[in-house]
Amino acid sequence: MNDFLIYESKRFHYLWLRDNCQCHPCRHDSGQRLHETWLLDSKIAILTSETSNAGVKVIWDTPDQHESFYPHDFLMANCYDKFPTSGDKLPRWGSDFQMTSYDYAQVLEDDAVKLSWLNDVIKFGIGKLHNVPTNPSTILNVVSEFGFVRSTNYGDLFEVVSVEKAENLAFTPLPLSLHTDNPYRDPVPTLQLLHCLVKAEVGGVTALADGFKAAEILQKEHPKAFELLSTYKAKFRFASDDAILEHSGCMIETDKQNQIMAVRINNRSCAPINVPFDIMSSFYEAYQLFAAILHSDACKLTTTLESGELIIFDNQRVLHGREVQAIGARHLQGCYADRDGLKSTAATLVNKVV
Amino acid sequence: MNDFLIYESKRFHYLWLRDNCQCHPCRHDSGQRLHETWLLDSKIAILTSETSNAGVKVIWDTPDQHESFYPHDFLMANCYDKFPTSGDKLPRWGSDFQMTSYDYAQVLEDDAVKLSWLNDVIKFGIGKLHNVPTNPSTILNVVSEFGFVRSTNYGDLFEVVSVEKAENLAFTPLPLSLHTDNPYRDPVPTLQLLHCLVKAEVGGVTALADGFKAAEILQKEHPKAFELLSTYKAKFRFASDDAILEHSGCMIETDKQNQIMAVRINNRSCAPINVPFDIMSSFYEAYQLFAAILHSDACKLTTTLESGELIIFDNQRVLHGREVQAIGARHLQGCYADRDGLKSTAATLVNKVV
Repeated sequence: MNDFLIYESKRFHYLWLRDNCQCHPCRHDSGQRLHETWLLDSKIAILTSETSNAGVKVIWDTPDQHESFYPHDFLMANCYDKFPTSGDKLPRWGSDFQMTSYDYAQVLEDDAVKLSWLNDVIKFGIGKLHNVPTNPSTILNVVSEFGFVRSTNYGDLFEVVSVEKAENLAFTPLPLSLHTDNPYRDPVPTLQLLHCLVKAEVGGVTALADGFKAAEILQKEHPKAFELLSTYKAKFRFASDDAILEHSGCMIETDKQNQIMAVRINNRSCAPINVPFDIMSSFYEAYQLFAAILHSDACKLTTTLESGELIIFDNQRVLHGREVQAIGARHLQGCYADRDGLKSTAATLVNKVV
Repeated sequence: MNDFLIYESKRFHYLWLRDNCQCHPCRHDSGQRLHETWLLDSKIAILTSETSNAGVKVIWDTPDQHESFYPHDFLMANCYDKFPTSGDKLPRWGSDFQMTSYDYAQVLEDDAVKLSWLNDVIKFGIGKLHNVPTNPSTILNVVSEFGFVRSTNYGDLFEVVSVEKAENLAFTPLPLSLHTDNPYRDPVPTLQLLHCLVKAEVGGVTALADGFKAAEILQKEHPKAFELLSTYKAKFRFASDDAILEHSGCMIETDKQNQIMAVRINNRSCAPINVPFDIMSSFYEAYQLFAAILHSDACKLTTTLESGELIIFDNQRVLHGREVQAIGARHLQGCYADRDGLKSTAATLVNKVV
């Protein structure tokens, strides 16, 4: 006996259908499920089913002869027969990526512009604004346009300042290799914003790279290295007078379908590697290969943030660094936020804009 | 030729040692690495090494004959020869768990008490306080004792209120099956706090379960079910007028060493399951089995929060629910926070208390 029905040549299990009944006692107005999935009869059968262009009506073989209706659109949107191939389908980018920059005033005024900006962050892992007022703390207003600040022991925002004069070269901020921020946190902040208030006279060039692209190059050219970095965890650590932060994770995090979910690279805070002795040399080789790909001409993009420019990027995908020593006054403000707020704002804007 | 040296019968690779040089040009005072790991010569060799009780001194075969010293304690703490077995070693608990409750005033006054409370959260995934003042928003003060609030579209805190009179039974809050909160967020809040301001006259019993214990029971008794839930992702969704939140993750999340990292169970917000057709029936069976174990006498603990009691729990390990309808006025406040702040506070307290 079948335990599924067929609608438009797609199979749907009875149990799945019963679980997804859209009727009022089964669902709250908000769409939240009110019956308990785990208490459903896994052997549930149907008395009758009736198919039309509008969808499928089912009367269940239960004491109350519960009735369900599944609209056509619901079934097509949630069909699981002929399973799609995995993959996030997001475009990757390299050093020749032409980032779109959006005018901040337009973002505030026009939902369509705002949506384009947020969609860039979702799609490319990075979005850019210009003409953002250079008053300190404006970055917090930018966050409130799409979500919520992730407060940490660094505060709601942090300062990236160099006030040294050109003659004190030795004390200007050094170049920083490409990294993701705060891999020693649990959870790692998923978004980072950097707002340029005062541009350096010379230098202070920002480097950026799409970690997912670099990971895919590694996977293709050095599959064994990719496997090592996505199997063994590295520990990251930050300690100061008032904080001791430690967390472990794979430098390339993949899910069980081997899809890349996150990258974690931070030379400064990487603790002593702790993989089995026989793996250690290969692990270092893999780590060095991955970093070399990230810093290669194929991946590393350089740009100089102008005063009033602000970038927001996915801190589990996009790496950033400082390419050249900053000379002269330079002032950036940074802060962390999370993806869920941004994606939610984009999703609600889609309904408004369309 | 060896690419490692032996200290106290443990092997340490040259590259690992060079990377972990503790000297000043290699390390910032804070312990952050200043040289670039990815630019180190993977074939690095040593000129001389000198072992003593204090540790190992190495002079490297590099143009500058760089000198490194590795203290005994550093080498022993970070040794990776004879790799330890994996496993988080945290104790699991069931329905007979006797939770320690700490007096809030003592937590505020005595760092040792505070540390015990925070260590309970780290160890058991849950910690309890009593005599927390029942003024609204006190929960935010509690968070500031160890970390930072995770703000969301629900605000800094949220209200769990039932004001219905006993005769309006139908409108009192319904029981809620065991769940983790907000699996539709990315990242999921890692800590949740619930503070009881006003206890229900009758009912309002809180149910709790250690999701890691339940997952281990499933793994032992139904290994195939465990594998399914830790391989295929479920999507969770919440939609309201001002938010559309969606995220996918495994109901049991494991790392590549098959260690349990997180559980995600939420009957209300679980979207239509989307696994391949041939897997669907087994997946539902696994899901129902896991939920049944969670709600079984072995796992499910019930307790009634008194006014002034506050629980804080790991939202990726401990499930909570409402066991019995609350009758009469009941007022809880809840909020989210993250593990990194709590663990950092505990780690800094260890140094103070010892």
